[in-house]
Amino acid sequence: MGLEGLDGVVVGETTLSDVRGATGELYVRGYPAAELSRVLTYEGMVHLLFQGELPHPEEAQSLRTELARHREWPEESLPSLERLPRGMTPMETLRTLVSLLGVGWTRFPPAQADLLPFIARAPGGLARAYRAQRGLPPVAPDPSLGHVANYLYQLEGRPPEDRRVRALESYFVLVAEHGMNASTFAARVTISTQSDPASALTAALSTLKGPLHGGAPSLVSDMLDRVGTPQAAPQWIADALGRRERLMGFGHRVYRTEDPRAVRLKEIAREVASPSRFALAEAVERAGLAALRARNPQRPLYLNVEFYAAVVLEAAGLPPELFTPTFGLARLAGYSAHILEQARGNRLIRPEVRYAGPGPRPVPVGYSLR
Amino acid sequence: MGLEGLDGVVVGETTLSDVRGATGELYVRGYPAAELSRVLTYEGMVHLLFQGELPHPEEAQSLRTELARHREWPEESLPSLERLPRGMTPMETLRTLVSLLGVGWTRFPPAQADLLPFIARAPGGLARAYRAQRGLPPVAPDPSLGHVANYLYQLEGRPPEDRRVRALESYFVLVAEHGMNASTFAARVTISTQSDPASALTAALSTLKGPLHGGAPSLVSDMLDRVGTPQAAPQWIADALGRRERLMGFGHRVYRTEDPRAVRLKEIAREVASPSRFALAEAVERAGLAALRARNPQRPLYLNVEFYAAVVLEAAGLPPELFTPTFGLARLAGYSAHILEQARGNRLIRPEVRYAGPGPRPVPVGYSLR
Repeated sequence: MGLEGLDGVVVGETTLSDVRGATGELYVRGYPAAELSRVLTYEGMVHLLFQGELPHPEEAQSLRTELARHREWPEESLPSLERLPRGMTPMETLRTLVSLLGVGWTRFPPAQADLLPFIARAPGGLARAYRAQRGLPPVAPDPSLGHVANYLYQLEGRPPEDRRVRALESYFVLVAEHGMNASTFAARVTISTQSDPASALTAALSTLKGPLHGGAPSLVSDMLDRVGTPQAAPQWIADALGRRERLMGFGHRVYRTEDPRAVRLKEIAREVASPSRFALAEAVERAGLAALRARNPQRPLYLNVEFYAAVVLEAAGLPPELFTPTFGLARLAGYSAHILEQARGNRLIRPEVRYAGPGPRPVPVGYSLR
Repeated sequence: MGLEGLDGVVVGETTLSDVRGATGELYVRGYPAAELSRVLTYEGMVHLLFQGELPHPEEAQSLRTELARHREWPEESLPSLERLPRGMTPMETLRTLVSLLGVGWTRFPPAQADLLPFIARAPGGLARAYRAQRGLPPVAPDPSLGHVANYLYQLEGRPPEDRRVRALESYFVLVAEHGMNASTFAARVTISTQSDPASALTAALSTLKGPLHGGAPSLVSDMLDRVGTPQAAPQWIADALGRRERLMGFGHRVYRTEDPRAVRLKEIAREVASPSRFALAEAVERAGLAALRARNPQRPLYLNVEFYAAVVLEAAGLPPELFTPTFGLARLAGYSAHILEQARGNRLIRPEVRYAGPGPRPVPVGYSLR
């Protein structure tokens, strides 16, 4: 007996982002998200989300310096991070390491300065744990690099090419915030008990992990690999739908038209992916949309954010198992802004439920296990 | 701008428990919770929550054996558990160790057998981490002990007295499940994305951690210590209210009369606490209720579950910093049952939010940080 999904239930107000599902628009602090992904660094996006206005270049620089200063992990949390189980998936690792960063918390409400260390430390922590789980030595953060470039650097141990950094930075900005999705809602439920930032971020990442939410972009890469060539796409799609398989990267709970992030990610993919990979993706897109529309003309499905995100993340050089955790790293800015927003003017989030079971009934006379 | 708390919003159906706030009744699977706390072991309560019916004694014994069999931690997760930061609070520790137990998860929906290892391992894991953080050697689980007795044993390293085990077991049964509270709701939001048990339990414990939910029972002990004597209670209460302090252990979001758990916990406290501690608690209860009713005769406040829970947990020999994590350990049965219930007939929980910020507005021409 699942809960009913809260479809259409308005749980409150936000000033962070405006998701217009009917018309396919997404505004963050009033600005079109696609535009922001062309002009902002990730640090600039954090500033916009936290402050409500675009940063002056010197403000963005100062936030970049501050985030870089927080990248080092506290000594006390490193020994546990370095010994995470090898079999942990990267998303389980990210969930655990954010929890590991929350030590001795009591303050409420949290301030912006309380959230920045999580944003700053999570990418390097993930990189460090990921390398440790594979027997590789840690790579110290490079304070001369921006947030996104440093993530690739700590993962790979060599300075990343500008082309890859630019693509990944656009991705980070584009997906940093997106309304009241399930993981953001979880973060707000958690902080509403006057819990703490580590707890709220851990709850959010725990929720993002599910394949109905953030957990499937690597399956798009698998699908493209299995299709193989643009020519094979129509038949492959028809066969998959014939086997009643769900097509990866199609359909969204909110958007009733093109997801504006998907449109922008396709543009980034065109710039950064190999021409053959992009052609394959476009062929699968075309065949998938045509087949889905033929099956259900009344309610056509569109590409969601995952489809070209997979192509962009591949081209940025990330292994598929890091796609969802990388989405989580980008979304930390949005989660953090929601946590701050919720903590101001907070009210405990506690819904009601209908009881639909047996009883009341008495415990049988004489029954005891003790 | 906080969300509006979902007060009175019915999010779905459950067959697990029936919380009747207006009349002060709580039924689990139809049985009065107070009755269950007299006759069930914690293992029996897990069976009732999972299966819907009271176990036959041999069924309860078989579940006890199965839970005892799962108490040992997997080798892969122990090194990280043993090296958690010393400054971590026990609730941060519990959140992290449940996340540490989730390794390599992909299955959905989870089965009962997938939840049992978390219930079985969490108490010993908390005990082990708590001892390691204090430089104490680990205590191996004792398979001859029941779930609750083994928790005290792994914490203290010596067999606990029956009297303490009985009191703590009654507490564990009584608080194992309680409708759609914030942490249970968080668990269901998390699993609704087809995430996994470790993630959903981690989100629940992250949410329970807040003082508006599970995070304040140790403050009741602090308050009793500060009051000092029964005679001092009326003046102390008047002074505290005069300073506009919130009285610990009074008031609940749902109950409009006595919380049936508070009534039963007082009974247990009377049996197990020292007569002087119980007399002090009763004097503070009386003075608190009288003062609160004098201030607001229209909407009198009642004791909540925390007040006598603190007295019972003290008497069971737990240090105050373990009160909230112990509440979390007991609640794992309820969370687990809700996770299983949500996963059957699941729908992604994704509410709507009203945008109340500026815009749409264009990014200024020429603006770029890149």
